[in-house]
Amino acid sequence: MIKFDNDYSKSAHPVILDVLTQDAKNSHTGYGLDTWCKRATAEIRRATGSPTADVHYLVGGTQTNMTIIDIALRSFEGVIAADTGHINVHEAGAIEYTGHKVIALPSKDGKITAAQVREEGRLNENNPTPGHVVEPKMVYISQPNELGMLYSRSELEEIYSVCQDCGFYLFVDGARLSYALASPANDVNLECLAHNCDVFYIGGTKCGALMGEAIAIVNDELKPHFFSYQKQHGALLAKGWLLGLQFYTLIKDDLYTEIASPAVKMALQVKEAMLARGVEVAVDSPTNQQFFILSDEQIAALNGKYLLSEIENVDENHKCMRLCTAWYTSQEDVDALIRDINNLY
Amino acid sequence: MIKFDNDYSKSAHPVILDVLTQDAKNSHTGYGLDTWCKRATAEIRRATGSPTADVHYLVGGTQTNMTIIDIALRSFEGVIAADTGHINVHEAGAIEYTGHKVIALPSKDGKITAAQVREEGRLNENNPTPGHVVEPKMVYISQPNELGMLYSRSELEEIYSVCQDCGFYLFVDGARLSYALASPANDVNLECLAHNCDVFYIGGTKCGALMGEAIAIVNDELKPHFFSYQKQHGALLAKGWLLGLQFYTLIKDDLYTEIASPAVKMALQVKEAMLARGVEVAVDSPTNQQFFILSDEQIAALNGKYLLSEIENVDENHKCMRLCTAWYTSQEDVDALIRDINNLY
Amino acid sequence: MIKFDNDYSKSAHPVILDVLTQDAKNSHTGYGLDTWCKRATAEIRRATGSPTADVHYLVGGTQTNMTIIDIALRSFEGVIAADTGHINVHEAGAIEYTGHKVIALPSKDGKITAAQVREEGRLNENNPTPGHVVEPKMVYISQPNELGMLYSRSELEEIYSVCQDCGFYLFVDGARLSYALASPANDVNLECLAHNCDVFYIGGTKCGALMGEAIAIVNDELKPHFFSYQKQHGALLAKGWLLGLQFYTLIKDDLYTEIASPAVKMALQVKEAMLARGVEVAVDSPTNQQFFILSDEQIAALNGKYLLSEIENVDENHKCMRLCTAWYTSQEDVDALIRDINNLY
Amino acid sequence: MIKFDNDYSKSAHPVILDVLTQDAKNSHTGYGLDTWCKRATAEIRRATGSPTADVHYLVGGTQTNMTIIDIALRSFEGVIAADTGHINVHEAGAIEYTGHKVIALPSKDGKITAAQVREEGRLNENNPTPGHVVEPKMVYISQPNELGMLYSRSELEEIYSVCQDCGFYLFVDGARLSYALASPANDVNLECLAHNCDVFYIGGTKCGALMGEAIAIVNDELKPHFFSYQKQHGALLAKGWLLGLQFYTLIKDDLYTEIASPAVKMALQVKEAMLARGVEVAVDSPTNQQFFILSDEQIAALNGKYLLSEIENVDENHKCMRLCTAWYTSQEDVDALIRDINNLY
Repeated sequence: MIKFDNDYSKSAHPVILDVLTQDAKNSHTGYGLDTWCKRATAEIRRATGSPTADVHYLVGGTQTNMTIIDIALRSFEGVIAADTGHINVHEAGAIEYTGHKVIALPSKDGKITAAQVREEGRLNENNPTPGHVVEPKMVYISQPNELGMLYSRSELEEIYSVCQDCGFYLFVDGARLSYALASPANDVNLECLAHNCDVFYIGGTKCGALMGEAIAIVNDELKPHFFSYQKQHGALLAKGWLLGLQFYTLIKDDLYTEIASPAVKMALQVKEAMLARGVEVAVDSPTNQQFFILSDEQIAALNGKYLLSEIENVDENHKCMRLCTAWYTSQEDVDALIRDINNLY
Repeated sequence: MIKFDNDYSKSAHPVILDVLTQDAKNSHTGYGLDTWCKRATAEIRRATGSPTADVHYLVGGTQTNMTIIDIALRSFEGVIAADTGHINVHEAGAIEYTGHKVIALPSKDGKITAAQVREEGRLNENNPTPGHVVEPKMVYISQPNELGMLYSRSELEEIYSVCQDCGFYLFVDGARLSYALASPANDVNLECLAHNCDVFYIGGTKCGALMGEAIAIVNDELKPHFFSYQKQHGALLAKGWLLGLQFYTLIKDDLYTEIASPAVKMALQVKEAMLARGVEVAVDSPTNQQFFILSDEQIAALNGKYLLSEIENVDENHKCMRLCTAWYTSQEDVDALIRDINNLY
Repeated sequence: MIKFDNDYSKSAHPVILDVLTQDAKNSHTGYGLDTWCKRATAEIRRATGSPTADVHYLVGGTQTNMTIIDIALRSFEGVIAADTGHINVHEAGAIEYTGHKVIALPSKDGKITAAQVREEGRLNENNPTPGHVVEPKMVYISQPNELGMLYSRSELEEIYSVCQDCGFYLFVDGARLSYALASPANDVNLECLAHNCDVFYIGGTKCGALMGEAIAIVNDELKPHFFSYQKQHGALLAKGWLLGLQFYTLIKDDLYTEIASPAVKMALQVKEAMLARGVEVAVDSPTNQQFFILSDEQIAALNGKYLLSEIENVDENHKCMRLCTAWYTSQEDVDALIRDINNLY
Repeated sequence: MIKFDNDYSKSAHPVILDVLTQDAKNSHTGYGLDTWCKRATAEIRRATGSPTADVHYLVGGTQTNMTIIDIALRSFEGVIAADTGHINVHEAGAIEYTGHKVIALPSKDGKITAAQVREEGRLNENNPTPGHVVEPKMVYISQPNELGMLYSRSELEEIYSVCQDCGFYLFVDGARLSYALASPANDVNLECLAHNCDVFYIGGTKCGALMGEAIAIVNDELKPHFFSYQKQHGALLAKGWLLGLQFYTLIKDDLYTEIASPAVKMALQVKEAMLARGVEVAVDSPTNQQFFILSDEQIAALNGKYLLSEIENVDENHKCMRLCTAWYTSQEDVDALIRDINNLY
């Protein structure tokens, strides 16, 4: 079975495993106060053009999202997200567990618009019953998002500008950020990202690391007491250097984008083959996640040899299926899939 | 200024104030363990045909909603509600504060349907990523709802039947229950209500009492440890008998419905006058809340003499305005309003 | 049975019931935005010499404590209290429910000392593992405390001074404040209190009102967004004027202290009689709560006629019993008790 | 600088790194649903003689403690622990963050006794104000505890028996369990442990793994919905097999105890040397943590060459210092330290 069902099916890129193995003989200070984390932070500050950013290393996406959001919001404040956003649908209520409402906005491609944010700001400003309603205070987006879509530089700038007008923080979830950076359609580099939000994270788990997400806090208001919050949320890794080491290795010479590049390329090859075969796509994703509307016959034809994820029923005999490539996907596997796609009818 | 802006502008019905004043010389045990509460509970059990219901007395609606929901749900479970539901929009995130997601369903008239609930049950049952998604476990409806609308007996029975199929609790918020009971359109009496849900409350604050909501827990699963939860949620009144006394007075000879009856009648008189004048209603409410689409000119004509609540802009020069009658509304005030409506153009 | 078991056994002082009854014909704006609340706030500002204090009205003590503490603290911060403090032992974990640790300090008479607070500050300052330990940020005391004891002016000033040195807020729970103000041993008037803490409340429930606690926030840092927090914590009374009306009535001509005065006097009469009879007191309380070490024989002799509260076993045949007077206690009942005490052996 | 300051200064035992490296080419299912986790679970069930235990893999101790405790307790219930317990002092309030009180009991050596637990049960049973007080429902102990001390088999059996009498769950934190198992003083093997508690965990982070704690739930009541809770608490590792692989490797041939054995032996060698030199120990620990009362002169003599942790001031010129060995400690380093101890005066 060739797995195209997600992008976290293998442990870590060989370069990272090498560094990890070589480092095994060394002792380190715990809780992220070590030299690997210091070096990783220096690289992330450099790469993002943010010399004063605070950088912290957490283990996984859900704990990263819940910790950041809980730090940023007072208890009566909520976070705006697309209705398809990870925090709204795939975290078992982790955000609500920390006490905050996710204010979900309708979205076709998983993106929200500056106009939608502006409207939330306007409603909040003109709220006839202030104090009775959750106040939006943060906007959550992901780059790429749950449907593989990207915010363009101009879209991001516009959203951030509206956020600043409204007094909202902008938080960018970059769990799959490398696949955005590696996309030919992308015009938001790390520097652009860092200058157009208040806090974001560089995903490691899905992008070459064993595990880990590197948070960069750009806005000074969100910096105080992070360590205490992190500890209290169960999100502080004792051996923090394990994360620092990986992010240093990924960011220093941009291995991060480099290893994502073939993954995106291959995803686009599959899309091309599907389109050529007359298969519809649910959204026109330019990254490593692709969403195809396949008939039950087509699914049956691919099934058994390839593993894709079922997303939802589209109609009586069509389903939306997700295909995911990753830094470890082989051209050979993709070529095989494309051959079989070409034989679909 | 004649106030039609809400139904909690006066303290309590004179009969209640009399009983309260006469009782002032008596000593009572605290925390709801007194004889007034015992007597009120006996009356509520009788009136609802629920001899084994647990009955508890709380001070206000938000604390009642958050306490019940938090007791009923495990932390990863959520509560289904209409998107206009009080818990979704008007409680400053109190439900999320207790850690639970409100799963909001679209609704035109503030009601949700059995079909919508069934679909949520189906999605939950067929969830491709169980454990990653908030599980619905309770359905919240209100009778009448935020828009003054009623569930009919058959609608309620159908929703409850679906809830039982899906393993969901049904919770009915009766903050304005007297105005449902007093409506000529209503066919859900207290007994029918109690037999078609797991927990509900009889609202006092808006229905003749100084304050207070009487929770009736019908489902045994929701009964244990209520007192501890109530205390911990800051929802236990030291002088609980103040609530018991009021509910005993309201329920024993059905003063509860009796005093709501003229309020509903007068609200319908106003609606009739508005319709006769060509004013549109946002929904065709059969209870004490009425929602009119008025032009800015019409609003200006009524303004200064009558206080209505602005709900939202409908278009450039129309607004949806809420009119509310209550147990204390006078026919004289309504007649004056109707005369002025008749002069609108 | 003559009840001396607590100070919340009767509804409200007749003057309050009168004002309430007379006001029943009037309409008011909801949620504390009415004129009664405005007038009460003006009186409280005057009486406490705090023209810029924010004043808010809540229904009961536990919800008041949990709301204030939750507003003041970040999630990793805790509140220091005596181990006997109400928030540590009698609120079913309400403070922890809001996410905060109660840092309990040992205490003999329910009071904590400035030296104890200073030591907590020192430990926090010199914490060898910052970020791993709950940081104290608030000190909670009550006046009078759970054992009826008072902080003197100099003690209060010293504690507040230490709090300011340590960066701690000082919060004074005044659930029984009238019995402190009415005590001959007291030298902390309302003005002194207000000038020596950051936030405190004037208790109504136990001091003549039907229910209610009036929070005065002196420190500007604790003022923002109170309304939203109050709503979200289920602590916002729809008919807020019911509370404003009562506090206005209690504070304007100091009915508040006046009606507590005989209660304290009678409690001290009972203490004198007990001491004369050779009964030991657990603490030498100068307020309306008295704690006697009685033998089982003595308890049996009083039992049946008088209701006292059992606090704890002292030894095999002695118990600590609490006697409580209140604004409604009659001299006749106290005289009867004293006669029976004089006959104890 | 030779580090004796903690037991989490190096990444992982070479055997684990080898297995990890060899596995890097393989694809796995996410979220702990992989074959490594299945195999690890089989080994843990075998080793603990608990064929029906549910086993789950989490990343770190704090998230493990908070998740287990939050699952086991209703919101008004608390967890009993020694005042020195990790959950009471070193987790930044993580337990309170989940809403639960830690009921701290005084302890000299970090252990609590069956008699103390029984007394808590008795107080709870005879609580004069039920519903107003946090109810204990779980007892938390650690093996070894924060001071390196061990519960004997008979102590553990007695505590568990009392817990069962009182209706309390017993939860054993085994973050350093290997150093208990490897101690010559220990008579509690994995099977004994599993049969004398309701839930426990086998620590990996400090015992040879890169990171990870393996929870074994023995009591059926605590098993349902673990996955959902784990996800919601941010405690579900996407690449769960990274944990399964490590625990399989550690447990299958008991590498777990084997690598801890020299660490304990060396810690006892250091203790012997200290005692021979007339240094007092704070507690007589039989495991890898040792606590010495050293004079400032003695500390200065060791300082610069060896890193120990300062625990607290004992008197004006003595401090309690912790020395920690680990699976990676070398005999050479310990010999050097012992030589320098022999030269202390």
